[in-house]
Amino acid sequence: MSKVFVFGHQNPDTDAIASSYAFAHLAREAYHMEAEAVALGEPNEETAFVLDYFGVTAPRLVASAKAEGVDTVILTDHNEFQQSIADIADVTVFGVVDHHRVANFETANPLFMRLEPVGSASSIVYRLYKENQLDVPKEIAGLLLSGLISDTLLLKSPTTHATDHQVAQELAELAGVNLEEYGLAMLKAGTNLASKTAEELIDIDAKTFELNGNNVRVAQVNTVDIAEVLDRQAEIEAAIEASRAANAYSDFVLMITDIVNSNSEILALGSNTDKIEAAFNFTLENNHAFLAGAVSRKKQVVPQLTESFNA
Amino acid sequence: MSKVFVFGHQNPDTDAIASSYAFAHLAREAYHMEAEAVALGEPNEETAFVLDYFGVTAPRLVASAKAEGVDTVILTDHNEFQQSIADIADVTVFGVVDHHRVANFETANPLFMRLEPVGSASSIVYRLYKENQLDVPKEIAGLLLSGLISDTLLLKSPTTHATDHQVAQELAELAGVNLEEYGLAMLKAGTNLASKTAEELIDIDAKTFELNGNNVRVAQVNTVDIAEVLDRQAEIEAAIEASRAANAYSDFVLMITDIVNSNSEILALGSNTDKIEAAFNFTLENNHAFLAGAVSRKKQVVPQLTESFNA
Repeated sequence: MSKVFVFGHQNPDTDAIASSYAFAHLAREAYHMEAEAVALGEPNEETAFVLDYFGVTAPRLVASAKAEGVDTVILTDHNEFQQSIADIADVTVFGVVDHHRVANFETANPLFMRLEPVGSASSIVYRLYKENQLDVPKEIAGLLLSGLISDTLLLKSPTTHATDHQVAQELAELAGVNLEEYGLAMLKAGTNLASKTAEELIDIDAKTFELNGNNVRVAQVNTVDIAEVLDRQAEIEAAIEASRAANAYSDFVLMITDIVNSNSEILALGSNTDKIEAAFNFTLENNHAFLAGAVSRKKQVVPQLTESFNA
Repeated sequence: MSKVFVFGHQNPDTDAIASSYAFAHLAREAYHMEAEAVALGEPNEETAFVLDYFGVTAPRLVASAKAEGVDTVILTDHNEFQQSIADIADVTVFGVVDHHRVANFETANPLFMRLEPVGSASSIVYRLYKENQLDVPKEIAGLLLSGLISDTLLLKSPTTHATDHQVAQELAELAGVNLEEYGLAMLKAGTNLASKTAEELIDIDAKTFELNGNNVRVAQVNTVDIAEVLDRQAEIEAAIEASRAANAYSDFVLMITDIVNSNSEILALGSNTDKIEAAFNFTLENNHAFLAGAVSRKKQVVPQLTESFNA
């Protein structure tokens, strides 16, 4: 077999970079494959902190596999084709390591798929090291730990799996860091919103959902100070209204998530604010409201919106 | 979690029955789930031989999960919804253990998926027993061995994975049988076509594939004498045309596989015989043609049809 690319999703987050980097190493060492980790986007600020901390060079960017002479790929932290490399439909998917739902994914041939409903793709890659009895190098343990911390907001998100706590402890030991101290420092590195324009801020981590015929955009930013973000409300609302007009979003929901106290402020603009209020049983005042304990878009926001819009 | 159904595909073959029966046992013992193996069809003659040989009662038939009060399921030996239980879209897929391509499969939530491109789903289930350090009971070892023998035609099919030989040896030892002797006896038990009507014959092991908007039925029968099956060609073609009309299959491809010499005769009827001829680079004469060395629908027929229908 010739060279195989291993990569996470577009707009990569820390788990996408960490799981692909580590799995490429595992594939070389344990499966004797010529595997290269590549990325579909630049590291975000949190991931840049992680790579710098553990002395790892960011995987090089690629836009197409075929253009690089590669026709076999392994996906980590995603499976939906619209989140993958541009020419995903033209190459052979050799394997997938992921922790998301399966959708818009199809292959012509049997493949390796290792999916588990756990907190991060990094958690699964770590389990594969153990199954293959391969030592995890210190810097790779650091990356995998960071992927798990990032996706679960330091094991506080309801997406955290019962097994993830033990995984985090073991990886922290291998990486030689204190879980809580390192985790908070890492998450804080991703909360530097002051350097971002309002347009950038609402697009850091945003996904569109089709809810009963409405295009609803749900974005999330992490912060250590919700009030600091709300100080920019007028500017952010202008960016949201411009984005709604340009993309025909019926509604725009921005989760401003306090990573220290694990709560979110919801800022919502659009045509269905009544449905958004009903979804969370709160009243928007000046377009925003507090949602205690909410940190997960996947578990604590999208299902509630889906139900309310379908009611 | 309440009761979970574990089942293989419609028109179950030995691997579908064996992998679901064994995985349900594993899920009860290792994962402490209330798992019940059920089946979407009666055992074929080969499978009946296997169940009788190892003293196992066939899983009960179910047509719907919801009707039985079950809303969570685990699929073995398949993932495509049209090969699954009738109400698959209305239930939660908790997990999948499979060795086929992925297509027409979508979930709302993250799940367990364990897919490997190996000879049988039974091979993967056996690996899961080992990973969970759970002893394989003798009769379950016999079933898993039979699933592997059935799907690989006694390790001769190109779908046989390098690791499957060792799996077969270990399972034969656990089951207390001689691999070659038992394997041939078991396969021959499935070649008794004389007792079957043409309608039964074309439905023994048949799957539907959606190829570029066409519903293509691909059936396979095992024999020790291809000519004996072709003696019944007129009767078989009438059954195929009736089935096409009743089920809106654009095409019907029947593989008549010689299990001793590892070749197949392809009988094809339908609207796209040009695409079928192009797929195999042969010319159908009197609706059939010889395909040397072909014994695997999955590796040697479906990918070729997929490519040809998409060309």
